[in-house]
Amino acid sequence: MTSSPQEAREQLVVDQVVASFEGAPDPRLRQIMQALVRHAHAFAREVRLSEDEWRAAVEFLRRCGDITTGSRQEFILLSDVLGLSMQAICISRPAQGDATEATVLGPFFVADAPAVELGGDIAQGAAGEPCWVTGTVRDTGGAPLPGARLEVWQADDDGFYDVQYGDDRTAGRAVLRADDAGAYRFWAVTPTPYPIPHDGPVGDLLAATGRSPYRAAHLHFMVSAPGCHTLVTHVFVEGDPLLASDAVFGVKESLVRNFIRHGPGTPAPDGRPLDGPWREVAFDIVLARDEAS
Amino acid sequence: MTSSPQEAREQLVVDQVVASFEGAPDPRLRQIMQALVRHAHAFAREVRLSEDEWRAAVEFLRRCGDITTGSRQEFILLSDVLGLSMQAICISRPAQGDATEATVLGPFFVADAPAVELGGDIAQGAAGEPCWVTGTVRDTGGAPLPGARLEVWQADDDGFYDVQYGDDRTAGRAVLRADDAGAYRFWAVTPTPYPIPHDGPVGDLLAATGRSPYRAAHLHFMVSAPGCHTLVTHVFVEGDPLLASDAVFGVKESLVRNFIRHGPGTPAPDGRPLDGPWREVAFDIVLARDEAS
Repeated sequence: MTSSPQEAREQLVVDQVVASFEGAPDPRLRQIMQALVRHAHAFAREVRLSEDEWRAAVEFLRRCGDITTGSRQEFILLSDVLGLSMQAICISRPAQGDATEATVLGPFFVADAPAVELGGDIAQGAAGEPCWVTGTVRDTGGAPLPGARLEVWQADDDGFYDVQYGDDRTAGRAVLRADDAGAYRFWAVTPTPYPIPHDGPVGDLLAATGRSPYRAAHLHFMVSAPGCHTLVTHVFVEGDPLLASDAVFGVKESLVRNFIRHGPGTPAPDGRPLDGPWREVAFDIVLARDEAS
Repeated sequence: MTSSPQEAREQLVVDQVVASFEGAPDPRLRQIMQALVRHAHAFAREVRLSEDEWRAAVEFLRRCGDITTGSRQEFILLSDVLGLSMQAICISRPAQGDATEATVLGPFFVADAPAVELGGDIAQGAAGEPCWVTGTVRDTGGAPLPGARLEVWQADDDGFYDVQYGDDRTAGRAVLRADDAGAYRFWAVTPTPYPIPHDGPVGDLLAATGRSPYRAAHLHFMVSAPGCHTLVTHVFVEGDPLLASDAVFGVKESLVRNFIRHGPGTPAPDGRPLDGPWREVAFDIVLARDEAS
């Protein structure tokens, strides 16, 4: 292929930068940096990136850094809305038998959540419609996983996680253990759609491109058991109109469930007194065995 | 082309993200974001980016944000060492006749530098070997540009720009005007190689990949005249061993000049008393006409 003098000038820059990483002692880091350079330059050349646009990009990253704190991770949000968080999961977690699909961790996971007994209420004061969540945990070989560890967390009815209130409350999160048959059950609140934090540069990007900051309603799960891959996933609400436009591309069809609605007065499965409507959902979880990786 | 189920899963993520930008009202922003998504995902898929590597990348960007201040722009340094700053210039400034080639602005330009008379000394106290710099400014049509504005700035002999000392000094920078024939002349200090700031994450990246943080020795110019494109460039020192490994890929062969060395006792061209060796360099500058763009 012949190239114009201008193409040759641009390719020379790419070649110089790729060559500069040739001496990297770690072959994996060398591979990543050289590929990053090739793809980043291909992007800039394809769109004919102007100097003003380059300056705008640098300023955007500076603003991301400026708003980032321990509890506000703007670079994770950026990766999320560009689908890169979901793509990294997709690459790392190829389908294994009938294992439950993974999705994004999100920025609101907290280690060492309080333990809650099976059948207990993880809301712990989080506002919302009560929701009875049940299921089983088994492995891809079909064997139940007694005592499997389930970490569950969710936003309240106002769309906020406990950590977003900044007042040290703990609500809407818990660690549970499956019973001897690998079954689990707990009360939560019915998930509702909420926006990702959008008062920063990532929110501005979504607004400028006509995209919604809303996530489809979901409940987070992290499920682990000895000998199995730890699964990070969500269960989504059937019929949620946001399923097709989730801001972080976390929706997988296989993770959507019917959250059955019960009117006021319908008795709860565990006899809990309820004075309004409530829901229930069944979400069976299948973990891949480590040896299948 | 047939694709595996895994390829199809990954491509589905790309397609969803590209589609999410389809409604962006600004067609240029839509084009840029969709191309960015395609290239970024192609990178992640090509290297089979792991979740740990994704986390390391997010943490790297967080650290870049953390060290960034008004006078320390880590994202510019990152763009520089990936050659993206130079590529943006290369794309924006195609060759025009015999116009002088552009190179990176760098992070140390300051607007409103002090005016210095032709023949004066821009060092203003910056340490280093005296260097007599002369040249002409003309346009690509061959016409001299009387009164052309030259902004020049440089590091001192210790490799630091005035703004890096944090004590409000102004040294090694000035604004000059070419004379009626488009000629200029001034004293500076002979440029020496210096490292870009490398005590942050970008420095760590260079160290981890076996790259030097050093820039080839240079003197910065920003040259403007009515009816012409403003030129941002450097003049480099012939024989500098760092010409082939400039940390930011700013070297163009056409910008390298002989900095002629004179021993102690050699009279200066303007009669300035000098008690040691000094140098001189000629650097003629050609600006592209606006109408040629």
